[in-house]
Amino acid sequence: MEKFIDNIAQDYFTNRRTIRNFSSKEIPIETLEDIVLRASKAPTCGNMQLYSVVATCDEDKKRRLSELHFNQPATNAPILLTICADLQRMTRWARLSDADVGFDNFLSFTSAFADAVIMAQQITTIAEQKYGLGTCYLGTVTYNAPEISKLLKLPQLVVPVACLAIGYPDGEGEATERLPLNGILHFEEYRDDSDDMFLSIHKAKEEYPANKGYVAENGKRNLAQVFTEIRYPRGMNEEFSTKLKDYLRMQKLF
Amino acid sequence: MEKFIDNIAQDYFTNRRTIRNFSSKEIPIETLEDIVLRASKAPTCGNMQLYSVVATCDEDKKRRLSELHFNQPATNAPILLTICADLQRMTRWARLSDADVGFDNFLSFTSAFADAVIMAQQITTIAEQKYGLGTCYLGTVTYNAPEISKLLKLPQLVVPVACLAIGYPDGEGEATERLPLNGILHFEEYRDDSDDMFLSIHKAKEEYPANKGYVAENGKRNLAQVFTEIRYPRGMNEEFSTKLKDYLRMQKLF
Repeated sequence: MEKFIDNIAQDYFTNRRTIRNFSSKEIPIETLEDIVLRASKAPTCGNMQLYSVVATCDEDKKRRLSELHFNQPATNAPILLTICADLQRMTRWARLSDADVGFDNFLSFTSAFADAVIMAQQITTIAEQKYGLGTCYLGTVTYNAPEISKLLKLPQLVVPVACLAIGYPDGEGEATERLPLNGILHFEEYRDDSDDMFLSIHKAKEEYPANKGYVAENGKRNLAQVFTEIRYPRGMNEEFSTKLKDYLRMQKLF
Repeated sequence: MEKFIDNIAQDYFTNRRTIRNFSSKEIPIETLEDIVLRASKAPTCGNMQLYSVVATCDEDKKRRLSELHFNQPATNAPILLTICADLQRMTRWARLSDADVGFDNFLSFTSAFADAVIMAQQITTIAEQKYGLGTCYLGTVTYNAPEISKLLKLPQLVVPVACLAIGYPDGEGEATERLPLNGILHFEEYRDDSDDMFLSIHKAKEEYPANKGYVAENGKRNLAQVFTEIRYPRGMNEEFSTKLKDYLRMQKLF
């Protein structure tokens, strides 16, 4: 029995893959509700559940939301879930309860940010492990946060921080490599590794066939240049940083 | 077979409890390494794994780290894991690869923050579900981020964003209530609920016996006042916001 449970867990966590292609099969609303309800038992800051989940199922709305995610392939999913840091619900409740509430600040935002991402990951695990669904995070959620906010009618003190495309997989998804354990786990103190160590941690990643392909395709000399000059260039990062900070100020959380 | 898997999942996700009391049983290092390695297959921004995990096992170090978490009960765990947003590893690698890298900004920080929390929650699930360990998030990690950073020798571009106390449970942990589904799930747009709706969402929470106890203990008139005036008061939130922002600026991520 224990062995069996062990194998299930081993298979799922080690072998899970991100899914970017979805079949046309719909997700029943009861399934979505069951996933979100179960996920709501995930850890949360002081049991305040500082998040809200907005489900986009309507085709027209999904098309408009997808545009704000640059129409990346995974937006073909039947449902897009936008998971928001939400300090509005507690604030409204507190005001109605004649309580002095001060959640309009950056510390509260980081607590809500963590709550929302914990919730997003719990939804991911339950959807994949229990229902055989596939998921893909859309990291672009912070790039166009103000426009997404407007489309989903998010009030002040609510900020979209994670987006999940979710649906039944069409195909298996691509296998991806990860860094070796010594690249991510430190004991007692953050190791101040040598240059050689930093390079060796990334060696297998650089040798990975798909990654070699990206280097060639983009006419770059190595994989690090693909990440920092093509995919996540300084100028883009800085432009969207400014935009995100302005938006957080507008939401009273910066 | 499917039924059996269903029951395992149902039991775990719906019934999981946060553990704050730990037995003296040690966690073998191989177990910790297995958990972190499996968790590293969790979703991550552009497959960059913008996080690092620092394990505190040494008794003296744990005592000092616990102080920075205000010695809350869960710090009696055999291991404290500090999960950090890490833009240093990619930056070092990129510089060594002659790549123009610009990850010293707020947008990159939010991507790394999400990556770190996804990783923390994946560690939580694997530790609990596969190994029967208990866990507790220490939300105080952002309150004393600069001091924790110094203790763990975190370099620039690395910020602690989640901390997990982890160990074998002593007892079952307390059951806690959650908001009803309509309090956290919205369809198509964020519902602009009426005052009555906001109050009714929180009704069951207010009736929960433990919560009634907190109201009486603290001499408050209702539960919202306990949350906003006793546990997370405005002054404290604002003080730690300023401190966190100053620290993020020092880490080049604000």
